[in-house]
Amino acid sequence: MSWQRPDGRKLDQMRSLVFQCDFTSSAAASVLTHWGNTKVLCTASIQPGVPRFLIDSGQGWLTAEYRMLPSATVPRQQREWLKLSGRTQEIQRLIGRSLRAAIDLKALGERTVTIDADVLQADAGTRTASITGGYVALTQAINKLLQQGEVQSSPMISPVAAVSVGLIEGEVFLDLDYPEDVAADVDLNVVMNGNLNLIEVQGTAESGSFSRQQMNQMLDLAEKGIKELLALQQQVI
Amino acid sequence: MSWQRPDGRKLDQMRSLVFQCDFTSSAAASVLTHWGNTKVLCTASIQPGVPRFLIDSGQGWLTAEYRMLPSATVPRQQREWLKLSGRTQEIQRLIGRSLRAAIDLKALGERTVTIDADVLQADAGTRTASITGGYVALTQAINKLLQQGEVQSSPMISPVAAVSVGLIEGEVFLDLDYPEDVAADVDLNVVMNGNLNLIEVQGTAESGSFSRQQMNQMLDLAEKGIKELLALQQQVI
Amino acid sequence: MSWQRPDGRKLDQMRSLVFQCDFTSSAAASVLTHWGNTKVLCTASIQPGVPRFLIDSGQGWLTAEYRMLPSATVPRQQREWLKLSGRTQEIQRLIGRSLRAAIDLKALGERTVTIDADVLQADAGTRTASITGGYVALTQAINKLLQQGEVQSSPMISPVAAVSVGLIEGEVFLDLDYPEDVAADVDLNVVMNGNLNLIEVQGTAESGSFSRQQMNQMLDLAEKGIKELLALQQQVI
Amino acid sequence: MSWQRPDGRKLDQMRSLVFQCDFTSSAAASVLTHWGNTKVLCTASIQPGVPRFLIDSGQGWLTAEYRMLPSATVPRQQREWLKLSGRTQEIQRLIGRSLRAAIDLKALGERTVTIDADVLQADAGTRTASITGGYVALTQAINKLLQQGEVQSSPMISPVAAVSVGLIEGEVFLDLDYPEDVAADVDLNVVMNGNLNLIEVQGTAESGSFSRQQMNQMLDLAEKGIKELLALQQQVI
Amino acid sequence: MSWQRPDGRKLDQMRSLVFQCDFTSSAAASVLTHWGNTKVLCTASIQPGVPRFLIDSGQGWLTAEYRMLPSATVPRQQREWLKLSGRTQEIQRLIGRSLRAAIDLKALGERTVTIDADVLQADAGTRTASITGGYVALTQAINKLLQQGEVQSSPMISPVAAVSVGLIEGEVFLDLDYPEDVAADVDLNVVMNGNLNLIEVQGTAESGSFSRQQMNQMLDLAEKGIKELLALQQQVI
Amino acid sequence: MSWQRPDGRKLDQMRSLVFQCDFTSSAAASVLTHWGNTKVLCTASIQPGVPRFLIDSGQGWLTAEYRMLPSATVPRQQREWLKLSGRTQEIQRLIGRSLRAAIDLKALGERTVTIDADVLQADAGTRTASITGGYVALTQAINKLLQQGEVQSSPMISPVAAVSVGLIEGEVFLDLDYPEDVAADVDLNVVMNGNLNLIEVQGTAESGSFSRQQMNQMLDLAEKGIKELLALQQQVI
Repeated sequence: MSWQRPDGRKLDQMRSLVFQCDFTSSAAASVLTHWGNTKVLCTASIQPGVPRFLIDSGQGWLTAEYRMLPSATVPRQQREWLKLSGRTQEIQRLIGRSLRAAIDLKALGERTVTIDADVLQADAGTRTASITGGYVALTQAINKLLQQGEVQSSPMISPVAAVSVGLIEGEVFLDLDYPEDVAADVDLNVVMNGNLNLIEVQGTAESGSFSRQQMNQMLDLAEKGIKELLALQQQVI
Repeated sequence: MSWQRPDGRKLDQMRSLVFQCDFTSSAAASVLTHWGNTKVLCTASIQPGVPRFLIDSGQGWLTAEYRMLPSATVPRQQREWLKLSGRTQEIQRLIGRSLRAAIDLKALGERTVTIDADVLQADAGTRTASITGGYVALTQAINKLLQQGEVQSSPMISPVAAVSVGLIEGEVFLDLDYPEDVAADVDLNVVMNGNLNLIEVQGTAESGSFSRQQMNQMLDLAEKGIKELLALQQQVI
Repeated sequence: MSWQRPDGRKLDQMRSLVFQCDFTSSAAASVLTHWGNTKVLCTASIQPGVPRFLIDSGQGWLTAEYRMLPSATVPRQQREWLKLSGRTQEIQRLIGRSLRAAIDLKALGERTVTIDADVLQADAGTRTASITGGYVALTQAINKLLQQGEVQSSPMISPVAAVSVGLIEGEVFLDLDYPEDVAADVDLNVVMNGNLNLIEVQGTAESGSFSRQQMNQMLDLAEKGIKELLALQQQVI
Repeated sequence: MSWQRPDGRKLDQMRSLVFQCDFTSSAAASVLTHWGNTKVLCTASIQPGVPRFLIDSGQGWLTAEYRMLPSATVPRQQREWLKLSGRTQEIQRLIGRSLRAAIDLKALGERTVTIDADVLQADAGTRTASITGGYVALTQAINKLLQQGEVQSSPMISPVAAVSVGLIEGEVFLDLDYPEDVAADVDLNVVMNGNLNLIEVQGTAESGSFSRQQMNQMLDLAEKGIKELLALQQQVI
Repeated sequence: MSWQRPDGRKLDQMRSLVFQCDFTSSAAASVLTHWGNTKVLCTASIQPGVPRFLIDSGQGWLTAEYRMLPSATVPRQQREWLKLSGRTQEIQRLIGRSLRAAIDLKALGERTVTIDADVLQADAGTRTASITGGYVALTQAINKLLQQGEVQSSPMISPVAAVSVGLIEGEVFLDLDYPEDVAADVDLNVVMNGNLNLIEVQGTAESGSFSRQQMNQMLDLAEKGIKELLALQQQVI
Repeated sequence: MSWQRPDGRKLDQMRSLVFQCDFTSSAAASVLTHWGNTKVLCTASIQPGVPRFLIDSGQGWLTAEYRMLPSATVPRQQREWLKLSGRTQEIQRLIGRSLRAAIDLKALGERTVTIDADVLQADAGTRTASITGGYVALTQAINKLLQQGEVQSSPMISPVAAVSVGLIEGEVFLDLDYPEDVAADVDLNVVMNGNLNLIEVQGTAESGSFSRQQMNQMLDLAEKGIKELLALQQQVI
């Protein structure tokens, strides 16, 4: 292994992951996701009503918002005010799409679930932590709906988790932290469901390109990581 | 006491207050301030350079930003995007003015301290928690500057703390929670320094008006509360 | 008196104040308030309907907007375009709150009164002139409603007036002009009703702090000033 | 004359016009232009420096801003906030172009004159009042520059004035008020210099069209009006 | 002729004009207008419903939007994002007014026609090309409505075309290209209907002024140009 | 093949693709890319200077902007004004990343290439047409730099092309048109270089999920498509 991982992990080793549930009490569910040095507060709020295009369709909706607190990075970043950066929009659309794959919107009824992912501290993997922790918050919020008798049966279809993999100096690494994310020639974000089938794949060659073989190596490693994440999710749900 | 406090406190009793320091590691200092059911993440970031009007003045600057996470309230609130609400602007200007009273900007040198107060959970008193917790974060960040030899002597002038008091059904109450804030005929936010001298007083009659005598009763109670806050601050600094 | 007032006034002396009524004819009422060298055009417009949160409540609403014309100051200031400054939002919220204390919104019925305060020339005290002149415009507009038989009885509860006081070099001064506002160590804006009871108190130590005793001295002086303002208001209503 | 003018004027008769100079003292020059029931506060402010495209060109610049106070019309209009209306942009560009024709920007030196035209009360003809009153303010401000020795000789080239003419039920009318502006089939805004030569012509058929002959009739009437305006301007400069 | 036209044209000679119809198929009508080196894509889209002020009036509406692609000019221009430039707003309002003169909105019924004029390549005359090509697109879109039986009779009233004329070194030129537009002392945009009556006249002296006689010379030349345009329009409609 | 392709193509058959070069003359290069019924105007503009983060680095930059003309779709879409949609930001970031993989920014020198992709007509595949046509425009613009002697050797590294593939009713299809894009359970956008190595992979399960095997089937088909695109590009460069 030519690249030495800053925190001494093996190639295929995940960072530590703790879901601190009920972190705040104002949202339907609130999970502070500690993923290595990345901390993302994932909350799920459920409100009656749906966007205009779904009114009277009987179908629910799930949307997501993602922000980095200014102090989440070093140095401090300006708050996004007038114009949401492309990156922020890209990530919150990814979170939304990924978690919509976890739920039967028809069975949800005309409600809107909003997943808020606010990054308190960023050490790369904020989008995968938002999806993986967001799934826990989503499930807990839906469980409350069930307990309150608001829905008769659970609309949840399948667990969803996400992990990053990368190609650094020709080798494939699982779950990149920030230094690795910067050094990676290629980084891949992979979202899978409970059957380890693909929901989203986003791969980018920061420089050069990558072969089909390297693509499959990265996907193999991602599967391994996601298996571990699915298990951790089940422990807290 | 005709008004019964929802959490059973006495008239002049503060809510519990815990400063959870080093909550995140990316900012110079980070204090999660648990004040009753209100949780505010106060961070202090220090960056070289000052606003244009202070360039080459040799003087530093301190500014503050305040936001409520959407899930901090029930129901969920929209994120402030294009137009900052008057309330948000008012509060972040109050935090800035109050904490500028805690530091000798000349002794700070041409640096800018940014205090970020992000409300994770709101149960009233978010502005006073931002000031009181913000002072702890400010002091810890300045201590780091000292340890790093960036400044020769501490620019800190005096502790600063803030508390709310209110008039409900003719009686004066210390440290209002949300139901009390809604019920109050008058609410007063008071910022004092280490000598219990006034830095800011903001009093508003939500309905009717209040006498000079009631004003002084509220200020007496505020002094009592701020003494307790100053003591709690010193325990963690 | 160590501080010499630029215009030679005594410590407790107000600047000249003239309400030039019916200055424009397009609004329900229009009062050009000449307060020393400060000129604020205060208009009251009344339109059917209320904000969404009051629809079908039977209750009226009063809101205020405040702006400085670019040429009101030296040098000329940019017009506030995309982002209202914190100061502007703070002042228009203060004007709104203060003048809502002058009127029984229930008795007003589902109408919205908009007080516009446009500063044509600024020499400090623009917010207190907006409130004091705004009350005259409000009362004249309501009188027209009465004359037009739109309301059966006057919804006006109490006169409202506002004045500034300040602490300069340890002494208390009534009704600060611009040079005094800049020099003040502490400035206090006080809003009182007809009974000289408090509606709003906003006090800020620009540097250092101020004692409870100094606070009461400033409030005593404010009372004196507001008595004079209330009398002047009655002369034109 | 089939159309009866609401205020009884003859076809070719102007409304009353009074230039109330030195209305405010904060700007270099300030002229409250009372034109019939239209009141526009025209101020001229002069600041060092020019827009980027003129830096180091030795040439000055003149720009204009135009706004309607919300209470200037019945009913009250929203303040233009995020998006300047096309009408506002069109008018302030017209004022800028027209008054740039009154001054030798090269002789002005690298300064920027900003003409602010704030409509306090609108009864049509606000753009022509802004230009005609704006010229008076511009000239007075330049005279001050001369008195202060900031410029050696006056950069003023020629007086500039503007008037509206309209076609109502086949007849041509000079200086339309609001009801006439609404009724007009065609309205023409004409800007001329001291020699009654054209600087700007803007003619619009609100419905139908107009002939070349009608165009010339309107221009004849405009010349008559502008002669009167030029004379009134000279009386106050 | 002291000014030599860059492309060798005579004083009163138009540039080449080709209407490339059905350029795209997604809009109701789409005309790529090649006018000398200026290329404007004019499309007409028709959607049910009208702006709020016309709801239930039985009357239709026509509006226009105008933009320059960034690569339409040399050098490339920034896309207009937050704030539409005054020029853009002015031109799209001119296009809207001009083409509303071509159609009986009452006969159109409660529909909204949107004319989009996107400048792919700019060599001056973009607004006149937008109007002249926009009329062709409008007419073709209305013809489709007729063919689909959506309207019983054509709401079209009259052809509309527009051309620019200018005064360069004392002489009048028809249909200015970009170098001529920059050199012109005066430029006039003229919109006429099928009877060569005036719909809009916008004349601006970039420097100096122009006489009534020069005005009429320019209008004569414009008539000649518009006759040619009307003929070309009829060939493709 | 259960799904019948609307235009009768085979599973692995591309739509027709024509690069209409030199479509406009104002940009350094301008290619109207006709890809089936999708028409995208791809231009490349080259301006001196680089973004702030690259100043004095000796390195050039390439960025991209993507917009849909309102009339490009049925029905007409609003122009994106204040807030760029997440989709637009996502696509223009993808185009930028993809085409930066085609060029050695160091060899380009401190210049900025801006690729503008304006969709005149949309029938799905607008992002892949923007990348594939954008590469042609980029190469032609760079060739001009070479001819003008602005760069000594070509900074171009490798051709880049992109294509979409999709999973509809269990079968994999190459180069989806709009109806297919709507019907697809999974759609994948693939960007490859001259060696058919991967630069970007973006795959989304609109509903359900997809297996690793289906992923590889789609990538195989993409390779086939990209080979054809690379050949077509070479014919016009």
